[in-house]
Amino acid sequence: MRSEKFLTDNPLEIAELGEFGLIHHLTNDIETKNSETLKGVGDDCAILQYPEGRQVLVTTDLLMEGVHFDLQYTPLKHLGYKSAMVNLSDIYAMNGRPRQMTVSLAVSKRFSVEDLETFYEGLRLACDAHGCDIVGGDTTSSLTGLAISITCIGDAAPDKVVYRSGARDTDLICVSGDLGAAYMGLQLLEREKAIYNSQLENEKLRMKNASEGAKAVEEFQPDFSGREYLLERQLKPEARRDIIQALAEAGIVPTAMIDISDGLSSELMHICQQSHTGCRIFEERLPIDYQTAVMAEELNMNVTTCALNGGEDYELLFTVPLTQHDRVSALPDVKIIGHITRPELGLQLVCRDGVEMALKAQGWNPLKVESS
Amino acid sequence: MRSEKFLTDNPLEIAELGEFGLIHHLTNDIETKNSETLKGVGDDCAILQYPEGRQVLVTTDLLMEGVHFDLQYTPLKHLGYKSAMVNLSDIYAMNGRPRQMTVSLAVSKRFSVEDLETFYEGLRLACDAHGCDIVGGDTTSSLTGLAISITCIGDAAPDKVVYRSGARDTDLICVSGDLGAAYMGLQLLEREKAIYNSQLENEKLRMKNASEGAKAVEEFQPDFSGREYLLERQLKPEARRDIIQALAEAGIVPTAMIDISDGLSSELMHICQQSHTGCRIFEERLPIDYQTAVMAEELNMNVTTCALNGGEDYELLFTVPLTQHDRVSALPDVKIIGHITRPELGLQLVCRDGVEMALKAQGWNPLKVESS
Repeated sequence: MRSEKFLTDNPLEIAELGEFGLIHHLTNDIETKNSETLKGVGDDCAILQYPEGRQVLVTTDLLMEGVHFDLQYTPLKHLGYKSAMVNLSDIYAMNGRPRQMTVSLAVSKRFSVEDLETFYEGLRLACDAHGCDIVGGDTTSSLTGLAISITCIGDAAPDKVVYRSGARDTDLICVSGDLGAAYMGLQLLEREKAIYNSQLENEKLRMKNASEGAKAVEEFQPDFSGREYLLERQLKPEARRDIIQALAEAGIVPTAMIDISDGLSSELMHICQQSHTGCRIFEERLPIDYQTAVMAEELNMNVTTCALNGGEDYELLFTVPLTQHDRVSALPDVKIIGHITRPELGLQLVCRDGVEMALKAQGWNPLKVESS
Repeated sequence: MRSEKFLTDNPLEIAELGEFGLIHHLTNDIETKNSETLKGVGDDCAILQYPEGRQVLVTTDLLMEGVHFDLQYTPLKHLGYKSAMVNLSDIYAMNGRPRQMTVSLAVSKRFSVEDLETFYEGLRLACDAHGCDIVGGDTTSSLTGLAISITCIGDAAPDKVVYRSGARDTDLICVSGDLGAAYMGLQLLEREKAIYNSQLENEKLRMKNASEGAKAVEEFQPDFSGREYLLERQLKPEARRDIIQALAEAGIVPTAMIDISDGLSSELMHICQQSHTGCRIFEERLPIDYQTAVMAEELNMNVTTCALNGGEDYELLFTVPLTQHDRVSALPDVKIIGHITRPELGLQLVCRDGVEMALKAQGWNPLKVESS
């Protein structure tokens, strides 16, 4: 690990290509595959034409360096992949199918053309895997950090679109995959970064020579053994297309759905608020991976809190009518964690010891002050 | 003029609202008006449904503080307005109609809720004037400057969409409005900023007290008299819906079209490159406002160079078949500046003295190194 190790040495300067040259360089071999994509990169707009009766879904995300990602431990290929996944996940959360994507980047001088190629590699890998065309974007400069803005467009049949607002009393609350691992991965990366940076400082002091100091710790090997799953969840999340497909095959249309980006509690609150319901979920039913539990213990953190508020899981949280219990139970990698209640019962977590606690949204919020 | 005068004093802290509170605060009274907008802000995605046969246009722009705008002289309301216009203009450049917009902002701590309200005021003013629904977005934090990412969606009948690539030999080259004024407005603002900043420095040195110094020059009045048009072109550009409507009423579908954001030369090159043609334009026909000419002289700049390469005009550049000469001549605020030629003739500017010069794209390019 070294400072911004994932930026290329001896780079091809972006300035040598200029804006249009760079866009051409990054996008000229992109082929659009979906029949609705009439025109991709290369004009003032992309042009789409959806068949009659399809509803069009639009989602957008803005990711800022230092807030949403740290380039000291995020390889650019992973960052491209994850930036796409974050948006793909929002389309799945409506029970839709991602179809097109626009990608805007603002880069500072320390980025080379190869760096952006690497970012695009990850981005394209994600888009190819999810059948999504890259149809446009903007590449410009930034005085400071990297900014990434992605808009994803998807489609769905009108009777299949799932809102946050459709949950009803007695509906089952289901979640895919497991929770809290991405957050534990982040803690792990932050810990190793702190160790690395302090070793670097010590070496600098000892050698009174920054470059020798840097060299001396370049061999620094962070301790990630046995934690690969946590890292993968943080650096290479997967939008759950498989769950959307499994639901469709099982003939299940959820009554409400959302993807878990800011933590289970926060997303459950969105569903309950917009559906005008309460909910009861059970601590013992929360899906938690073994590595997540071990890491939480090591860091002296409550693993349930991590699962509830960790965020960045990109799992799907959805509700189905009670009558679909057997069907939903048969789905792979989906767990029933509780049920929807009347609104006056509030949002409750039933702990392992039977005590009920009110759920709070303490998930990650980039704009909120920390209340200690 | 004072440093970042347009940021509010005694602000309501963004942190008090948090991300969801802030989004709700900024968007809760937005009503969507277009029939294709089924669902706006408030779920994982916006939902649209276009009637059969309409083509959907998508464009996106990322604007970064310090690169695309300077908050020392750009009021936030104007910034919101202009951010929208930049995108609306791209939809018109395809001969389309803007319909929906998503808006993502990354803001640093120095912004208050009121600041964002002011930004949104300008944004909504632009969207209302152009019949465009605000349907979603993302509001997050930035460690440094303000980042604005907007995606605009529009529609058009398939036989009305105009690409950059349709220009043919002998087509007339037309441009709306006038050129170079926005660039002159920028020069003017930069000049007054430099004067203000140096006065501030002098006062600080004299008084050895920054706050008194600041106070002493707070009354500083930049000299903008007689230059109002230049300022308006820079700070409050108008996307040319009127031209699109006038073309439609006159029964003209341009063969190629683009909006002038990076300068006439650069945009003309895009059209010729993608249409595989050359062009000849005439210096004496370039539409230049009186204020632009006066300001260029004052700054000892060549006004033709400003018109060719200034950028940010957001006028429409389009080509029509020679047979439509009379119809296009009758359009208000449109000027024929030259014609399309065979590709081997290159891109030529015929100067006032009859000399022909090859056109170069020297327009604004945020990623290109300055070649002096």
